[in-house]
Amino acid sequence: MTLEAIRYRAGALQILNQLLLPHQTVYDEIRSVQDAYEAIKSMKVRGAPAIAIVGCLSLAVELRAGAGGDDPVTFIRESLCHLTSARPTAVNMGRAARELMEFAENESMEKNSEQLRESVISWIEDMLERDVNDNRKIGNYGAQHILSGVPRDSVTILTHCNTGSLATAGYGTALGVVRSLHALGRLKRVYCTETRPYNQGSRLTAYEAVAEGIPATLITDSMAALTMREMDITAVVVGADRVVANGDTANKVGTYQLAIAAKHHGIPFYVAAPSTSCDLSLESGRDIIIEVRPPEELTSINGVPIAAPGIEVWNPAFDVTPHQLITGGIITELGVFLPSELQAALTGRLTAL
Amino acid sequence: MTLEAIRYRAGALQILNQLLLPHQTVYDEIRSVQDAYEAIKSMKVRGAPAIAIVGCLSLAVELRAGAGGDDPVTFIRESLCHLTSARPTAVNMGRAARELMEFAENESMEKNSEQLRESVISWIEDMLERDVNDNRKIGNYGAQHILSGVPRDSVTILTHCNTGSLATAGYGTALGVVRSLHALGRLKRVYCTETRPYNQGSRLTAYEAVAEGIPATLITDSMAALTMREMDITAVVVGADRVVANGDTANKVGTYQLAIAAKHHGIPFYVAAPSTSCDLSLESGRDIIIEVRPPEELTSINGVPIAAPGIEVWNPAFDVTPHQLITGGIITELGVFLPSELQAALTGRLTAL
Repeated sequence: MTLEAIRYRAGALQILNQLLLPHQTVYDEIRSVQDAYEAIKSMKVRGAPAIAIVGCLSLAVELRAGAGGDDPVTFIRESLCHLTSARPTAVNMGRAARELMEFAENESMEKNSEQLRESVISWIEDMLERDVNDNRKIGNYGAQHILSGVPRDSVTILTHCNTGSLATAGYGTALGVVRSLHALGRLKRVYCTETRPYNQGSRLTAYEAVAEGIPATLITDSMAALTMREMDITAVVVGADRVVANGDTANKVGTYQLAIAAKHHGIPFYVAAPSTSCDLSLESGRDIIIEVRPPEELTSINGVPIAAPGIEVWNPAFDVTPHQLITGGIITELGVFLPSELQAALTGRLTAL
Repeated sequence: MTLEAIRYRAGALQILNQLLLPHQTVYDEIRSVQDAYEAIKSMKVRGAPAIAIVGCLSLAVELRAGAGGDDPVTFIRESLCHLTSARPTAVNMGRAARELMEFAENESMEKNSEQLRESVISWIEDMLERDVNDNRKIGNYGAQHILSGVPRDSVTILTHCNTGSLATAGYGTALGVVRSLHALGRLKRVYCTETRPYNQGSRLTAYEAVAEGIPATLITDSMAALTMREMDITAVVVGADRVVANGDTANKVGTYQLAIAAKHHGIPFYVAAPSTSCDLSLESGRDIIIEVRPPEELTSINGVPIAAPGIEVWNPAFDVTPHQLITGGIITELGVFLPSELQAALTGRLTAL
């Protein structure tokens, strides 16, 4: 079975509602930019790459229906601005918005409204395919890099949150590396943290692993260090919401703690992310704004209270892992780089294009 | 408000059913050793000191009703053996059982069955008072030690699991230290981890903090390292299920990871435990048997599934923190010791008695 989190057929967009997983498999129709904004904000769709894809596709849906009339550029700009504000920490939506806006403005010089709409729609539809291809490259580069460092037949990976088909256009980033290892017959087991407070690990990563027969064991976030000590973990591989110029990485809260524990145990720590998640405009992780989410995510599950009434809560959604702790490397579709190599590698690529 | 987790009045024992907290406050009657065994096993009562107290008091209840007939020593031995098997990692029940058995055997040399029953009942009833007094000493020693190391007016503590009135005969160990700091007007705030999978932090520690007006903030276990970096944490203070001769400490799973993160941030890490939680018969933490609990604790909450069906689970209830990471010290009712000083300190005490 291959999971299909985003269904798009020429102007019709549906997303797998991740709030209902793993108990119900329900696809929600996204008919407008506003539908997508709400789906992103409420986390029906999450994962930095998936957010960008769904956001842009929702714009394609409206453009196919003729939205923007005689001034599609203004409509596109306002839509992208709105979409970007839904989850500020993830960089991919912001980057896609800038690139798409630049493309649309250039196109508008020589095309009429109808032609502009068509070329923007094509640009967006290409994103979907490009993203899946990039993820397969990430998976293969990561798997090779991890295997090259170990004499063993099979490896054991620890991962955090969900970075699979459900977080991307398909295949996944960190979980894409796990998929590639599994496809090569070299994965002994993956340990996935449940990833409180939103349980992306127990709900989504576990769901993907069971669906595809990947040998996987669920642990609580608090068991990760013990698992590293007891379970012969070869590498820790996580995704990223944003990687900045010096390699500092914002990712789901708990990542920083995993990186500290990996360092303590001498286990390589990898970040897997497409180059679109890299933001060279920020020098270090100090500049990343961290989204703080509502207390209810800790104090209730599915609306049922689980904490003592009246307790105060701090609920940051992300943390920043300093580049010094990313000892394995940053796995991109262009290859695996040390944090110190990232800026040059990506700049070279951009020049080469 | 003072929380009363264990109610005992001359032969009648009730415990606050912690499975129903924080939503319902229900006291369950414990009429027999078997009732206590089941309450301990099912975690209606938990916390190493509280387990020992409830176990022994249940024996007192039966003895007051004449249990054991003409051979109370055999009845006491079998009861203690049964009680000790309910949660094997916590040392206090085992230690209380050995001491009580030795006492009972000595008494049986010169007393008849009725007199023996009475002296054993007195021994057990004294435990309750002694435990609360010991906890107050732990609280005061710990608070003074933490305050002596900082120039600030007030301190911020991070703690794990529940080690308060609900885990002991009253007052608490690590949370006793927090209570003492609060009573001195020197506590700025305590951060408590929710403590997956059983949520002792969000259910019980949060409940105690709200009930007594202690400034407290709930975080997920995965946010602890970020909290250490961002929230000016003065010290991490946790309890213990067992401290062995070299200072290695078994405690609620997640403790090891907190100790690694504290070390990374240069924050003193303290273990607070009565000397009855110290087990000098084991040389190092390698010898501690770790209880593995059912997968359902991770995959459901209050019977409602929260994880993908079919996922494998590893659910160790405890982990062992090596003594090298216990940088603040081990806080006992006899004073605060470095792990390397513990054995001599406790042996001295035993000699002095």
